[in-house]
Amino acid sequence: MAVRERIRILVTGGTFDKEYNEIHGRLFFKQSHVAEMLALGRSKLQVEIQTLMMIDSLEMTDQHRTSIVEACRKAREDRIVITHGTDTMETTARTLAAALKGKTVVLTGAMVPYKFGSSDGLFNLGSALAFVQTLAPGVYIAMNGRCFPANRVRKNRDAGIFEDESRS
Amino acid sequence: MAVRERIRILVTGGTFDKEYNEIHGRLFFKQSHVAEMLALGRSKLQVEIQTLMMIDSLEMTDQHRTSIVEACRKAREDRIVITHGTDTMETTARTLAAALKGKTVVLTGAMVPYKFGSSDGLFNLGSALAFVQTLAPGVYIAMNGRCFPANRVRKNRDAGIFEDESRS
Amino acid sequence: MAVRERIRILVTGGTFDKEYNEIHGRLFFKQSHVAEMLALGRSKLQVEIQTLMMIDSLEMTDQHRTSIVEACRKAREDRIVITHGTDTMETTARTLAAALKGKTVVLTGAMVPYKFGSSDGLFNLGSALAFVQTLAPGVYIAMNGRCFPANRVRKNRDAGIFEDESRS
Amino acid sequence: MAVRERIRILVTGGTFDKEYNEIHGRLFFKQSHVAEMLALGRSKLQVEIQTLMMIDSLEMTDQHRTSIVEACRKAREDRIVITHGTDTMETTARTLAAALKGKTVVLTGAMVPYKFGSSDGLFNLGSALAFVQTLAPGVYIAMNGRCFPANRVRKNRDAGIFEDESRS
Repeated sequence: MAVRERIRILVTGGTFDKEYNEIHGRLFFKQSHVAEMLALGRSKLQVEIQTLMMIDSLEMTDQHRTSIVEACRKAREDRIVITHGTDTMETTARTLAAALKGKTVVLTGAMVPYKFGSSDGLFNLGSALAFVQTLAPGVYIAMNGRCFPANRVRKNRDAGIFEDESRS
Repeated sequence: MAVRERIRILVTGGTFDKEYNEIHGRLFFKQSHVAEMLALGRSKLQVEIQTLMMIDSLEMTDQHRTSIVEACRKAREDRIVITHGTDTMETTARTLAAALKGKTVVLTGAMVPYKFGSSDGLFNLGSALAFVQTLAPGVYIAMNGRCFPANRVRKNRDAGIFEDESRS
Repeated sequence: MAVRERIRILVTGGTFDKEYNEIHGRLFFKQSHVAEMLALGRSKLQVEIQTLMMIDSLEMTDQHRTSIVEACRKAREDRIVITHGTDTMETTARTLAAALKGKTVVLTGAMVPYKFGSSDGLFNLGSALAFVQTLAPGVYIAMNGRCFPANRVRKNRDAGIFEDESRS
Repeated sequence: MAVRERIRILVTGGTFDKEYNEIHGRLFFKQSHVAEMLALGRSKLQVEIQTLMMIDSLEMTDQHRTSIVEACRKAREDRIVITHGTDTMETTARTLAAALKGKTVVLTGAMVPYKFGSSDGLFNLGSALAFVQTLAPGVYIAMNGRCFPANRVRKNRDAGIFEDESRS
């Protein structure tokens, strides 16, 4: 059964939140769509949305990851969803897994921007919020309807999907 | 961690799958959108989609519910998602809870048809598929980002949301 | 070349503006989407939007049609687009054609509500606004990319399209 | 009144037809969406769609423009719509105006790709097809609900809109 407690959503950017700038014809970040997506999903979860950064995950540095770890530690909530670009999601997941104890953290993202109609973002957000309510403490990636522990996942860049990968 | 086994999806209709008939200006059922929604969500889950009926849940009879119970029993899978109209979802959930043992069954639906743009359907399907992978055997309703045991939920018809309701 | 003068848009309802009431599961009217559609089309036309009524055109009475004629007469503009349900669009067009002189009036509508994603509404509005800028005074129906004089059109109800029909 | 004759649609690419490549996270061209858009608009016009090129209009060379002129000349139809990137649409329009006689040619495009939900493309296509049916021979740009002769238009790049510009 779902646990009825507040969930923190940390926004870091990624494809999820990219938009199309019609003046310059380029993709860019304006603001997060997470609140709009929760409204679309008629979510009645108690959530606290916190935007940490709005960047492409290819630009994410160690310093950025340190600030994500800090935000997870400082959060009053024990259940945290992080929206993140898919390109380096597994790196951030492993950094978090090594640094955090006692919290359930689920990273998710999208292959296509939420605003572009054909996005997987709403599906992924729904699944991430469900996984974060039910899984034991640990760090996970929720993509493609599945959920992977941080140390057993890799992005297959050719296929654009996440897969199991055992690590010793 | 998500269990890696096949999930059965039983389709019964509901708002989820309603479409607009442009010749007659009325809502109607054609075929289920579940496969299209899984493709949109880039789902890589192993699922078996089975359409049992395509009806408004206000028209669901005891006989219909018996056939849903039978379909759950006959299913090779121990994890089952049922798409269902919201109006009588709690009744079907209780019927299933009284009749089934040893399977994890999650009912979900939508307040707005998937095809109408402003639908919560994709969010709900994502969350239902996550809950069904992680919850212990039992019957649940996944709506509004939350998950309720069959005997502790009611639809608030004025607000159009699902709420906790303890039953003795 | 397009005439650069103000255009009046008279809103009467029709499928165009129908929405889905998620509490009751029925189609209904709330407010017109014409302004939102013009914004989506990045329209820079000078328009005046006036809502006369919000009804299904099957419910349109002689009195309603008289008020539409009056609104066209009183309008300062000589170019008028009317959004209208498709079921009786030809009747209103003929009423207007018999009663008005010296103005270019184009009726348009949609087979599917604008809010439902698969709507022809935006295409029709774009074409109606172009036809109204370029056609000589008279009353016309703009649907299916085409434009018909009021006395030479009928809706083919089986196919859901508008066709030429000569009247003697 | 609309002329009932076949219209040729020449596709050259532009924002109109851009898509999002979810593997590489970049915009790209696959194939034209014009046929899909006409179906959405329930168009019953007799059209012939011909793809000349699929390029960003910033990459359009004199040679490309010569091939567009040739395609207009060879077309059996006297009414032609050209889909085109907005950045150099006015240049192509002037090239066509200097080289063609006796045909009505309307260029149109979009500020946001058709596939991205918030696109003006369907509105523009509807208006371009209406203008091409009603205007006298000449070359025009149809954008923002308006229609400009080729020698009296410029794109305001800061605002992303087309404006009147008289040329001596």
